[in-house]
Amino acid sequence: MAQTNPPAVAMTPADIEAMGERARAASRKLANLSSTVKNAALNKMADHLEARFDEIATANKLDMDAGATAGLSSAMLDRLRLDQKRVKAMADGLREVAALPDPVGEVDRMKRRPNGMWVGRMRVPLGVVGIIYESRPNVTADTAALCLKSGNAVILRGGSEAIHSNRAIARILDDAAVEAGIPRNAIQLVPTTDRQAVTVLLKMDKHIDIIIPRGGHELIRFVVENSTIPVIKHDKGVCHVYVDKAADIAMAEKIIFNAKVQRPGVCNATETLLVHKDIASQFLPRAVATLREAKVELRACERSRAIVKDMKPATEDDWYEEYLDLILAVKVVESFDEAVDHIAKYGSSHTEAIVTNDYRTAQEFLKVVDSAAVMVNASTRFSDGGQFGLGAEVGISTQKLHARGPMGLEELTCLKFIVYGDGQVRE
Amino acid sequence: MAQTNPPAVAMTPADIEAMGERARAASRKLANLSSTVKNAALNKMADHLEARFDEIATANKLDMDAGATAGLSSAMLDRLRLDQKRVKAMADGLREVAALPDPVGEVDRMKRRPNGMWVGRMRVPLGVVGIIYESRPNVTADTAALCLKSGNAVILRGGSEAIHSNRAIARILDDAAVEAGIPRNAIQLVPTTDRQAVTVLLKMDKHIDIIIPRGGHELIRFVVENSTIPVIKHDKGVCHVYVDKAADIAMAEKIIFNAKVQRPGVCNATETLLVHKDIASQFLPRAVATLREAKVELRACERSRAIVKDMKPATEDDWYEEYLDLILAVKVVESFDEAVDHIAKYGSSHTEAIVTNDYRTAQEFLKVVDSAAVMVNASTRFSDGGQFGLGAEVGISTQKLHARGPMGLEELTCLKFIVYGDGQVRE
Repeated sequence: MAQTNPPAVAMTPADIEAMGERARAASRKLANLSSTVKNAALNKMADHLEARFDEIATANKLDMDAGATAGLSSAMLDRLRLDQKRVKAMADGLREVAALPDPVGEVDRMKRRPNGMWVGRMRVPLGVVGIIYESRPNVTADTAALCLKSGNAVILRGGSEAIHSNRAIARILDDAAVEAGIPRNAIQLVPTTDRQAVTVLLKMDKHIDIIIPRGGHELIRFVVENSTIPVIKHDKGVCHVYVDKAADIAMAEKIIFNAKVQRPGVCNATETLLVHKDIASQFLPRAVATLREAKVELRACERSRAIVKDMKPATEDDWYEEYLDLILAVKVVESFDEAVDHIAKYGSSHTEAIVTNDYRTAQEFLKVVDSAAVMVNASTRFSDGGQFGLGAEVGISTQKLHARGPMGLEELTCLKFIVYGDGQVRE
Repeated sequence: MAQTNPPAVAMTPADIEAMGERARAASRKLANLSSTVKNAALNKMADHLEARFDEIATANKLDMDAGATAGLSSAMLDRLRLDQKRVKAMADGLREVAALPDPVGEVDRMKRRPNGMWVGRMRVPLGVVGIIYESRPNVTADTAALCLKSGNAVILRGGSEAIHSNRAIARILDDAAVEAGIPRNAIQLVPTTDRQAVTVLLKMDKHIDIIIPRGGHELIRFVVENSTIPVIKHDKGVCHVYVDKAADIAMAEKIIFNAKVQRPGVCNATETLLVHKDIASQFLPRAVATLREAKVELRACERSRAIVKDMKPATEDDWYEEYLDLILAVKVVESFDEAVDHIAKYGSSHTEAIVTNDYRTAQEFLKVVDSAAVMVNASTRFSDGGQFGLGAEVGISTQKLHARGPMGLEELTCLKFIVYGDGQVRE
């Protein structure tokens, strides 16, 4: 949350509070809009983003210039950059959300009680969602679309380095939404980037129903420690692949390679390989050779290093590490139980996979490993809303309350009880 | 959370932390116990409570004496008192929980993905539940039973006035559980009542997965403001009955009487009556007469007072008030929309009921009122786990995240994703 350019707008706590009140008022109307209206708005928002590309480009240039002056790396600058192709991708993302089924209004588990009263649950929006993020400006459009589709008002608070781009995108989205019959203020962006504004935001439990922080560990910790609003954390992913003694070695090699190498910078990439001692001397040499071809650095326990030469020794810290890079920690374990204990102690409860052909071992792993996603014979890289068939992904929750693992539109809703009576009173 | 007797045991932050670690370790074993083992333990716990009644009585006398010295009201002392009959009721409560279905292990929404991988969700315990309460000592047994049945370890922190009784009950429960094969420390009670211990507890997000505060508004606020652990709030209930212009007047009279009078001291009792102007002059005189027979004090708006004489004028504060007493606020509204707006502005999103025979109005009320429970033609007093068919009630959530309204065993669990693959990797 470093400040790379001055706050664009000065905001008092009362201004932030007023944003919350406006969001709450908008949310009450939004909750009852039909899918037809919401989908038309999403398509219009997509069209406007493309039509008003020049506005976005002008704003983005301000961010790029400020970023260059502040000495951002070329990788960072590239993440920030918005060209016609990227804005088109953003618009297409909105059109895809329009095409998803609307979770709002579904009634489930309707049952008749002994007194004749019917009791069930209706799926309704959460209300007002606050999103605090540090990522690329496309998050502004993506999350606004998901909140709108699920009937929620949203307050967005993006990173300082993208403030001009984010403001332009949010303004265009809100204009288009209003034109399509969505209440004004359904989509609001905090137009300043000073941390004081976030602190005020995090205390507005009267106006905001849920806070989703998206960013680094420091940001998430700050939000958890300061929020009186319920938080859904998207914390780090220290994912494991455990190669059991009954593994198909070729399959295990393919899976660990994919889990580590296919996209190392994301949370569902694997950081630690655990190998059963009975299979280690067969499996490790060929797996390491393949990983080394992809320039993966290996940090290994003593038993692994006795099998394969020239791997760096792993320290205690390595087992906790989320490398997000072409680095893999490797450990030989004595037993299934040691693998499970290692995951419980060092893991982040994100995603773990076992490779095995033993039926009982597979079932036991699914049962005893307490992570958001637990897999048999598949790459941890599948732990993703799209891959799991949720349609779109709001993020990946690493906590247990409300939502665990990849979150789709449904996870932006809740269930209220509804009752159809005919005059029942309680005895 | 007033301190009426000195802390029974001095605890350092490290002691509290150690409790958390023990709970986490126990929870890993608990999560995988069969229902058979858990049910046998619950029945044994019930038997032990009855068999060791003398121990409970001795401890309870210490609390009663301290309470008398501290000048607790006779009502408070009565709530604190444990006799043989009450301990029997507590034991029977445990036996009822044993008889409920076990939510753990259910697998749902298993679907085949295009690449042949199966993805579904498995219901698993939350892990470690922290319960902070001010209520009667029976809460110790009730909540320990619900947590055990749902496979969770629990850390209980009761009120200071019941500390000796709570310690005796928790000790007996833990002993019996261990005898039945439950891991030691599945049930732990914080043996001290100083607030410092709570503050430490609320920061242990590493060891505790969810905090449920049960008690007054002040306690809940303290927990929400200090916890880094996700909280499920059980806040106040400012419930409404809205008598629509198309109401059956006799039904409306019966419902408001029940909602206010049947048990005024609980959160699902109604605090405010809203009446459509077109029916007010017919409905109010007879409803008020009936309510007055039960000694209900009425605090009314000017329009109501023009229809029925001698009602106290309501102030702005009355609309926000949770009386928990034989007092009812009364307001005549211009329209359905005014009733809904009033509920949104002054209510606590707990439970609201409409009385109407108009189909469209009934459906609209169910749709637009954003409360945990929304009812047509039934008393708000039904907003309860038992009445809704959940089997047992952990409490009533007034927040939207994770659980809304009455919470049963299922709400003490979460869903993890499970994947059955056969070697899939991501392209």
